[in-house]
Amino acid sequence: MLFSINFQRVDPKNAVIPVMDRGFLYGDSVYEVVRTFGRSKPFLFDRHFERLKKSAARLGFELPFDEATLYAHVLECLNVFDQENVYVRIIVTRGEDEGFSLSTPKALKGHVVVALTPVKKFPAEFYTHGVKVKMVSVQRNAKHALDPAIKSGNYLNSVLALQEAEKEKFDDAVMFNERGFLTEVTTSNIFMVKEGVVLTPSLDCGILEGVTRGFLMDILKEKKISFEEKQISRAEFESCDEAFVTSTLKDIMPISQIENRKLGLGEMTKTLMKLFEEKKKDFIF
Amino acid sequence: MLFSINFQRVDPKNAVIPVMDRGFLYGDSVYEVVRTFGRSKPFLFDRHFERLKKSAARLGFELPFDEATLYAHVLECLNVFDQENVYVRIIVTRGEDEGFSLSTPKALKGHVVVALTPVKKFPAEFYTHGVKVKMVSVQRNAKHALDPAIKSGNYLNSVLALQEAEKEKFDDAVMFNERGFLTEVTTSNIFMVKEGVVLTPSLDCGILEGVTRGFLMDILKEKKISFEEKQISRAEFESCDEAFVTSTLKDIMPISQIENRKLGLGEMTKTLMKLFEEKKKDFIF
Repeated sequence: MLFSINFQRVDPKNAVIPVMDRGFLYGDSVYEVVRTFGRSKPFLFDRHFERLKKSAARLGFELPFDEATLYAHVLECLNVFDQENVYVRIIVTRGEDEGFSLSTPKALKGHVVVALTPVKKFPAEFYTHGVKVKMVSVQRNAKHALDPAIKSGNYLNSVLALQEAEKEKFDDAVMFNERGFLTEVTTSNIFMVKEGVVLTPSLDCGILEGVTRGFLMDILKEKKISFEEKQISRAEFESCDEAFVTSTLKDIMPISQIENRKLGLGEMTKTLMKLFEEKKKDFIF
Repeated sequence: MLFSINFQRVDPKNAVIPVMDRGFLYGDSVYEVVRTFGRSKPFLFDRHFERLKKSAARLGFELPFDEATLYAHVLECLNVFDQENVYVRIIVTRGEDEGFSLSTPKALKGHVVVALTPVKKFPAEFYTHGVKVKMVSVQRNAKHALDPAIKSGNYLNSVLALQEAEKEKFDDAVMFNERGFLTEVTTSNIFMVKEGVVLTPSLDCGILEGVTRGFLMDILKEKKISFEEKQISRAEFESCDEAFVTSTLKDIMPISQIENRKLGLGEMTKTLMKLFEEKKKDFIF
């Protein structure tokens, strides 16, 4: 792995954060993950930067750098790391406080962490067949409590959901909100297909506005594929013909099984995976 | 301040945590705050230890020490720190991971942080008059999403609530759950008095089972004061005769104002503050 702290490369053993940083004390931080394909530039970097800025703004702090500075630094790190298919995590904390107050009256000096590691390959069958998901009892954080649109250092909700799924040997957890509507999988957005229409939870359900989700939605519009963002009940989700998840690290990954119900790798999912691969080429440089 | 990491005292500049620790990445940690009165032993240490253990168990990990070991270490730190009225924060993380997966298949080696600092004194009028609270729109984390009974490193929900209150010059934020029932203030439990009856939200509302809340409830039972734990609607809370908050750092602190409505320092609150001070003496040694 390669680390930098506040734009200075550091030895892994010095990749540390003060205990008094609010990022450690309260999970008071925001983050993004970008990746390279082969030796490419980070994929859709601008969209990730925009979301990072938005996450921080929603928590009431400003990023201590602009897009060009971060981009140049990430490229420099990639250059030194010198590997293919790199995972880049960018974490920005609100900063270090003097005491232990939740109060945020003044701007602090946030820590900026950049960590690089090779992208971990998923088993091939996750793409040729799909993943098995459980509809867990852990509800997704409510939009009015801690909006899942904020990509923050508060991840215990998803940790608990994943524990519940993994305990029963499922690959991932499908989460519903407090009103019973579908939201997302622990680190991915979710889509379903029903009678030829592609459906995904609307933003008001309390979800992360995924970059890959948005990229796929552009394709759906461009190709005039029937598509709707809406509130999806558990019953509607359970009745799907096909389902898949999207994320920066997964692109499109099919769902092969929802609890005990097996789904084949559907035609629409296969088509979208193909269209996604094609469109991706235009954005890899 | 005085810090120890994994039971070794460290210089403040070395009070750091690896970036790869899940406590930093995901707020995947639990904590407690104990305090001394004057040169006393930490107040109600055993109850705090029990809760720390329970918080970790709810997240699916075990504390890497027993009560006697932690207690001896805290006493040693207090001895070195050599001050009156000391705030002791104990943080235990799930530990350091190799990669960036939310998955928790195996036990990791958690970091144990102990931080000591003088207890910050509240303004005297917070006790002679009380604090002004706002009923914020930020909902408390739902019990089925991330149970507020777990005292963890995920504190953004409360940070956002406090921001909303402080923006309008209130001292603290009163939070309701997704069903509209009273829960707690950002780092304290809440009580109200109505027609001579003391009321506080029941645990099923999604609250921290406060040590000071429990200590006060023991007094209420002992003194046979009319008392009920129940679901309290916003309207019922707004109609209260008196209200106050409880926490390790505050003991009992009156509420002087709920939004625009002023409350006097009520007789019941004054009585309970006095009874609390008396009973406390039996537990300070």
